[in-house]
Amino acid sequence: MKSCAANRKGTVAVMTETYPSDPAAVVDLLGVLAYGELSAFDRMAHDARMAPNTALRAALAEKAALEIGHYRKLVDRIGELGADPQQAMAPFVVPVETFHARTEPKTWGEALVKAYVGDGLAADFYREVATYVDQPTRALVNEALADSDKAEFAIREVGVLLAQDQTAASRLSLWGRRLVGEAISQAQHVAAERDALVRLIVGGAGDLTAISALIDRITGKHVERMRAIGLRH
Amino acid sequence: MKSCAANRKGTVAVMTETYPSDPAAVVDLLGVLAYGELSAFDRMAHDARMAPNTALRAALAEKAALEIGHYRKLVDRIGELGADPQQAMAPFVVPVETFHARTEPKTWGEALVKAYVGDGLAADFYREVATYVDQPTRALVNEALADSDKAEFAIREVGVLLAQDQTAASRLSLWGRRLVGEAISQAQHVAAERDALVRLIVGGAGDLTAISALIDRITGKHVERMRAIGLRH
Repeated sequence: MKSCAANRKGTVAVMTETYPSDPAAVVDLLGVLAYGELSAFDRMAHDARMAPNTALRAALAEKAALEIGHYRKLVDRIGELGADPQQAMAPFVVPVETFHARTEPKTWGEALVKAYVGDGLAADFYREVATYVDQPTRALVNEALADSDKAEFAIREVGVLLAQDQTAASRLSLWGRRLVGEAISQAQHVAAERDALVRLIVGGAGDLTAISALIDRITGKHVERMRAIGLRH
Repeated sequence: MKSCAANRKGTVAVMTETYPSDPAAVVDLLGVLAYGELSAFDRMAHDARMAPNTALRAALAEKAALEIGHYRKLVDRIGELGADPQQAMAPFVVPVETFHARTEPKTWGEALVKAYVGDGLAADFYREVATYVDQPTRALVNEALADSDKAEFAIREVGVLLAQDQTAASRLSLWGRRLVGEAISQAQHVAAERDALVRLIVGGAGDLTAISALIDRITGKHVERMRAIGLRH
C-alpha cells in the first residue's frame, strides 16, 4: 500500500480534475456503507445459526465473511481520504442497527430472504451512487460488487422452502415488503440528518426528478428480484 | 481445481507411498478441524459485539472471517478425499459446542483471551498433527496456519486491559486456565470415541511416551503465550 500522504494527494488531484463532489460527503457515503457491511456481517453470522444443516450454516457464514472484506476496503479508503473511520461511521450506527432490530429474522426462510433482498438493494444502491464519486472510490465499490453473486445459494434455498411449504410464499413476500419498508424508513432518517450526503446524491443524479427516477430503478430491480424467486412485492 | 477423481487418485498414491495412515482417520481429523473453524467463526462473530469500539469489533470480526476461510479449505479437502463433509464433522459437533457453551466470554477481555489462547492451542495442535498426514493435507494445514498472526491485535488489547485494571491479570489468568481445562476435557471425550483418530496421532507420534511429549510441548507453548501477555498459567 502506498503511504496515506501519497494516496491522499493523488486522490485530491483526481477529485479536483474530474469531480467537484464534497469530500465530506464521500466520507459520509463510505461511512454508511462501511457500517452497513460491519453490521451485515454481524447479523448474517448470527442468522447462520438458524440454518437447517452445517453446509447451509457455512454458506451464510461465508457470505458474512465477504461483507467484512468489503468493510475493510471501505474503511481503508476512508483513511486514505484523511478521515477517521470510526467518526465516519458513527452517524450511521443508530439507523443501521434500528433497521436490523426491526427486521430480525425469526426463521431460516426470513434469514435467506433478508440476505438476498438486503444484498440486492445494497448492491443496486452502490451501483447508482458509484457513478457520483471519484474514480478510486468507484473502482473500490465495483470491486466490492464483483462477489455479490454469492447470494445465489440464498435464491436456491428460498426455492427449496417454497417447494416444501405452500404457505411460505405469502409469508416471505410480506417479509420482503417489510424489509424494503424498513430500509426506506431508515434511509429517510439518514437523509434528514446528512445534508452533504443528500447533496452528493442529488447533485450526482442532477435534480430531484432524477432522484425519483433513481428510487424507481432501485425499486424496480427489487420487484424483479422478488419475482425471480417466486415472491410478490 | 482439479477433478475430485484425479485428486483422490493422487492423494491415495502419495499416502500409499509415504504414509500408511488410515484415510478414515485423516477424514476424522479434517472433520474436527473443520467444525472447530465453523464454530470459532460463529463464536468470535458473536463475541465481537462486546468490543468497546467499532475498530476492535471489526478486528475480531475479521479474525472470524479468516476461520471461515480455513473451514472452506478443510471441507473441500474432505470432499477431495471422497468423504461427505457433513458426516465427517457430525461426531464433533457436541464436544466443540460443549466447549464453547462452557467457555462463553462474559467480558471483552475474556473474548480476547479466548480468541488468542484458542487460536494458539489450535495452531499448535495443527502443527503437531500435520506431520502425521499425507502431503496435500499437510500443505493445507500449513497454509491455514500462515495467517494465524491475526491474533496480534488480541495480544495488544489484552495488554491495554491489564494496564487499565490491576485486578484483570488474576481474573484473566484464571480464565485462561479454564479455557485449557475445558479444551482438554472435550479432547478426552473425542479421544474416547474416535479410535481411528487416536491411532493416527499415536501412530504418528510413535508411542504413548511420544504422545505425552506432544501434550507437554503444546502445554509449554500455551504457558509461554500466557506469560507473553502478562498472564499466569
